[in-house]
Amino acid sequence: MEISNGVIEGVTGINTPGALLKLIRQGAATTRAELVDITGMARSTVSQRIDDLLTNRLLIESGAAPSTGGRRPALLEFNRNAGVVLVADLGATHSRLAVSNLMAEPLAEVAATRDIGLGPDKTLDWVEREFQGLLAHIGRTESDLMGIGVGLPGPVEFASGHAVLPPIMPGWDGYDVRGRLEQSFGVPALIDNDVNILALGEWWAMDQPVDDFVFVKVGTGIGAGLILGGVLQRGNDGAAGDIGHIQVGDPDIVCRCGNPGCLEASAGGGALAKALAARGHATTVTNDVVALVRDGNRDAIQAVQEAGRLIGRVLATVVNTLNPSVIMIGGDLAAVGAELLARIREVVYSRSTALSTRHLSILHGTLGDHAGITGAAAMAIEHVLSPAAVNSTLAVAGGARQ
Amino acid sequence: MEISNGVIEGVTGINTPGALLKLIRQGAATTRAELVDITGMARSTVSQRIDDLLTNRLLIESGAAPSTGGRRPALLEFNRNAGVVLVADLGATHSRLAVSNLMAEPLAEVAATRDIGLGPDKTLDWVEREFQGLLAHIGRTESDLMGIGVGLPGPVEFASGHAVLPPIMPGWDGYDVRGRLEQSFGVPALIDNDVNILALGEWWAMDQPVDDFVFVKVGTGIGAGLILGGVLQRGNDGAAGDIGHIQVGDPDIVCRCGNPGCLEASAGGGALAKALAARGHATTVTNDVVALVRDGNRDAIQAVQEAGRLIGRVLATVVNTLNPSVIMIGGDLAAVGAELLARIREVVYSRSTALSTRHLSILHGTLGDHAGITGAAAMAIEHVLSPAAVNSTLAVAGGARQ
Repeated sequence: MEISNGVIEGVTGINTPGALLKLIRQGAATTRAELVDITGMARSTVSQRIDDLLTNRLLIESGAAPSTGGRRPALLEFNRNAGVVLVADLGATHSRLAVSNLMAEPLAEVAATRDIGLGPDKTLDWVEREFQGLLAHIGRTESDLMGIGVGLPGPVEFASGHAVLPPIMPGWDGYDVRGRLEQSFGVPALIDNDVNILALGEWWAMDQPVDDFVFVKVGTGIGAGLILGGVLQRGNDGAAGDIGHIQVGDPDIVCRCGNPGCLEASAGGGALAKALAARGHATTVTNDVVALVRDGNRDAIQAVQEAGRLIGRVLATVVNTLNPSVIMIGGDLAAVGAELLARIREVVYSRSTALSTRHLSILHGTLGDHAGITGAAAMAIEHVLSPAAVNSTLAVAGGARQ
Repeated sequence: MEISNGVIEGVTGINTPGALLKLIRQGAATTRAELVDITGMARSTVSQRIDDLLTNRLLIESGAAPSTGGRRPALLEFNRNAGVVLVADLGATHSRLAVSNLMAEPLAEVAATRDIGLGPDKTLDWVEREFQGLLAHIGRTESDLMGIGVGLPGPVEFASGHAVLPPIMPGWDGYDVRGRLEQSFGVPALIDNDVNILALGEWWAMDQPVDDFVFVKVGTGIGAGLILGGVLQRGNDGAAGDIGHIQVGDPDIVCRCGNPGCLEASAGGGALAKALAARGHATTVTNDVVALVRDGNRDAIQAVQEAGRLIGRVLATVVNTLNPSVIMIGGDLAAVGAELLARIREVVYSRSTALSTRHLSILHGTLGDHAGITGAAAMAIEHVLSPAAVNSTLAVAGGARQ
């Protein structure tokens, strides 16, 4: 359906340089002749626009395609090194920062243990210093920088780049993260919550990205990132995917959000660590639970299995509601491996409808600790390489040449 | 986000007649000068393309806009009478058919009581006869027909227009509804499930359609239609929105789907009629329950309140997961009025997160029995008036003139 919603779509039509770049990045075309075929544009117009993209180094000619009769045509390739993006996956206590090329591949990265509760000023001072260091480390300058992508461990109003009512980020509510980073670096900055960038990262890394994809982070808390119809869905307030506060757990356990029975208050890594500690185990964080399970501890295995069943109940609801083709399980607790995944699968397949599960796969994430920086880079890259942004950049460059 | 998924987007750029028509239909432009401003196209090119649309009667000149100095410019208006669509909202026992103009306004309609279980051949024979009758009734012929939209009371594979594993439609599984209607009438036919067309209809009728919208049909069964990011989400198998089979109800009640505890087996109109009948009331269908509630019957009111709380529990999960800005409640049981809506609101607002409900409205649908034919018409119209379809039609017409 394309019932429009007041939005003027298609302002960047197929005949713009940005749209041609997109076709090449998608692999839909590799030569000028293929672009002519797909777009129906005149060969001379295609050539002129490709020349602009070559001049701006967004494309390179990488060799020759097989001949179809005459001279072998030049192969056009997206230049993944035409610029870089700076990215940060900021967690409650652990963060990872990177400088990445335009295929979201990290060129240099740093990981650090830092408390997000230090507040936005100290945290972003540090992020900016690290960003400068990463650029310097790979010998690039701010003139190579095209965009910034940041994930935060709480709700974000995506359009404005402000943190909104974050439960574990004291001092961040309403903070203009985007404005600060854009002022510091002079490029577009995109800010989203951590689960959305994990979802984007894992989706970006799929061989064949599917249209309807759910990523579930099972860490200290529990949350989901939803890609539906091929588009990340943030909801009206940036709160989509907040499945950790669905009330399916023990109603006697009050969650940090104040409500009873939230999923994450019973099945999150923090909840499991606390429950196991009450039984005499030395567990304070999620990774302690993972270590116990790997040691074969029966209490820990049972706790994780029970958590898996509870998560499975919520995901059965998600499957009936959204009918995704892939659910991917990530986050620190996912490192326990089969114990968690098997219980989730068992419950989802038994409690969802036959139609909604007949093509459903439930898998582990593949990127581990790197999903966040991959997704943050993908988010920034898709923004700065959108047809509209590319056309605007080229128009400015063209104007400057005159 | 616009991370692409192998799909070639934007093939119908801003400079095509179809895209210009879309801008006018959206209300973004009403004169040639505004189209020049928005698109950046040459005035002569805009005029040529508008002439094509005027020739094909998709646009009409409806008067003169206020002058900005010289001659008063002609106002361009979408011609809602340039063609018609035939639409059918087929229910398990009740169906409504119409012929509608290109604003989804019915020009003539028929409603009938018919059992969908008669199977696809008998049902579609009847639909085709009624369609012919509706066209004749308004004095239009098949040459005015642009498309067909049909809703079925079961899952549909939208891309192929086949019914898929429909639980209450014996003989329909795998039936090529689209192929049959396209062969009979020679125009595109779009087939979807009834809840999706209800959602589209109510959304189409909103003064300001919101991006994230959930429509819930509470009739004999319970289902939802999801519009997220401004796009109807069907899921991977056309099963999105199947919330009636989420297991939150009485586990001792086995649903017609074979699973225990499904929402609709406890809270659907059919379930309420059965439970009230067991208490001695003369209730066999949903409307009997509605009549009892309107009579002030205490048993019926309590049953509907309990159903509302159970539906509210599922919708609280939907709200935490999708963060919509509007939930609309429709279907036969919604006719009981405040008793159902108040309980749904109570539970959703108490069980969902504060962030996800801070801008949420939960409302009754506004179109009643006409939501289905409105949505089926909207579905067909948006398809046949998509920029690609319009450009293709004009190209064929232009070719014929030469």
